[in-house]
Amino acid sequence: MAQRVIDYWFTTGSTHNYLTAMRLPDVAAATGVAFRWRPFDLRTLFDERGYFPFPKGSPKTAYMFRDIERRAAARGIPIALPVPYPLPDSMTANLVALLGIREGWGIDYIRAAYRRWFQEGQPAGTDPNLSASLAEIGQDRERVLSLATAAANRDALTAETDVARSIGLVGSPSFVVDGEVFWGDDRLEDAVTWARHGTLACATPTRD
Amino acid sequence: MAQRVIDYWFTTGSTHNYLTAMRLPDVAAATGVAFRWRPFDLRTLFDERGYFPFPKGSPKTAYMFRDIERRAAARGIPIALPVPYPLPDSMTANLVALLGIREGWGIDYIRAAYRRWFQEGQPAGTDPNLSASLAEIGQDRERVLSLATAAANRDALTAETDVARSIGLVGSPSFVVDGEVFWGDDRLEDAVTWARHGTLACATPTRD
Repeated sequence: MAQRVIDYWFTTGSTHNYLTAMRLPDVAAATGVAFRWRPFDLRTLFDERGYFPFPKGSPKTAYMFRDIERRAAARGIPIALPVPYPLPDSMTANLVALLGIREGWGIDYIRAAYRRWFQEGQPAGTDPNLSASLAEIGQDRERVLSLATAAANRDALTAETDVARSIGLVGSPSFVVDGEVFWGDDRLEDAVTWARHGTLACATPTRD
Repeated sequence: MAQRVIDYWFTTGSTHNYLTAMRLPDVAAATGVAFRWRPFDLRTLFDERGYFPFPKGSPKTAYMFRDIERRAAARGIPIALPVPYPLPDSMTANLVALLGIREGWGIDYIRAAYRRWFQEGQPAGTDPNLSASLAEIGQDRERVLSLATAAANRDALTAETDVARSIGLVGSPSFVVDGEVFWGDDRLEDAVTWARHGTLACATPTRD
C-alpha cells in the first residue's frame, strides 16, 4: 500500500482551489504525503458538457462563496469577498501555472496569483495580478508570457486536459490516488487517508 | 450559542441522501444534536434552473456513485450498485415521506425505502418498494397513498419546496442551522460543529 504521491489536479480559475493552494504545502509537510501539481483547463470540459456550474447570481454561486468564506475562516486563511468571478482569462493563468510547474516556480506563482485574487480582488491571469505575481517570485514577465503562450506549452496544457477528461474528472480541485478520484478541497483529507491506507476512515462525531 | 436542532432537508430521490438517512439516527444519538427531517421536491428546483446534475452515463454520475460506494464501505453501510437512477416517481416517495414525518412514521418509511433501493435495487416511490416499505413499518398502503396524494399534502410539499428555494438550497441533503446551509452528506459533521460552536473546526491531518 502506502502510495505517497497524490496527483493534485486543478484549474487556476477554480474558487475552491484557493483553499487548497493555500493549505497544501502545510498538509504535505504534516502528513508526509507528496502532491504532484497538475494544472488543466476545466473550462474546456465544462464547455464540452454544455455546463457552467456557477452562473452569476445563482443560489449555487452564493452557496459556493459562503462555503469558501466559512472554510477559510476556520483554517485561518485570509479572504476578502466578493472577488471577481469568473476570471476573464483563466487560460493564461493555467498556461503560466503549467510552465511554472515544469520550470520549478509554478507553486509560488499559483499561490501568489490566488492571494492577489482572493485577498486583493485582482483576477488571476490578467494584469495587474499577472505582472505583480511574476515580479514577486522573480520571474521575467516577457520571457514567461512568450513561453507560456507558445504552441508547445499550449499543447502541453491540452494534453493534461485530455488526461483529466480520460480519468473522468468533474471539477477542481481533484485528488487522484491509486485510480481513485476525490473531488473538492473538502476531500483532501479523504485522499490523504486513501494514499496511506487504501481506504477511508470516516469518524462519526461524538458528544464533546 | 448551542442551537441543538438542525433542519435536515432532503429529497427522497437523492442518492447521497442514502448515506445520511442510514447514519443520521446514530449521529443524533452520539452528538446530542436533534434533526428535523424536512422532505422537499428538489426536482422542482432543478427544473426551474434548467439543470439536472446527473445525466445517465456522464462522468459526474459515475463519480457520484463511486463516491457513495466508497463512503458507504467506510461507514459499514451495505450497498449493492448499480441501483436504478433517477427514480421514476420521486414525487410519490416525497409525498409519502412528508405525510409520514407529520404522522410520526416518516423516518422509518424513508429508511426502509432507501434500504430497498440501495440494497435490493427497487426504486423508491413505486412498487414493489412502496408497498413493501409501508408493510414493513405497519402502515396501510391505501390509506397512506390516499392521504399522501391528496391536495392538502401536495400543497404542504410545495410549501416546503418554497421554503427550500427561499433559503437558497442547491442540493440534497442540506443541513441548515442558524441560517447557515451545509450541502452534502459530507458536510453533516460541519453542521453539527456549527450547531454546537457557531463555527467550523477543520483539522489538518497529521502524520500517523
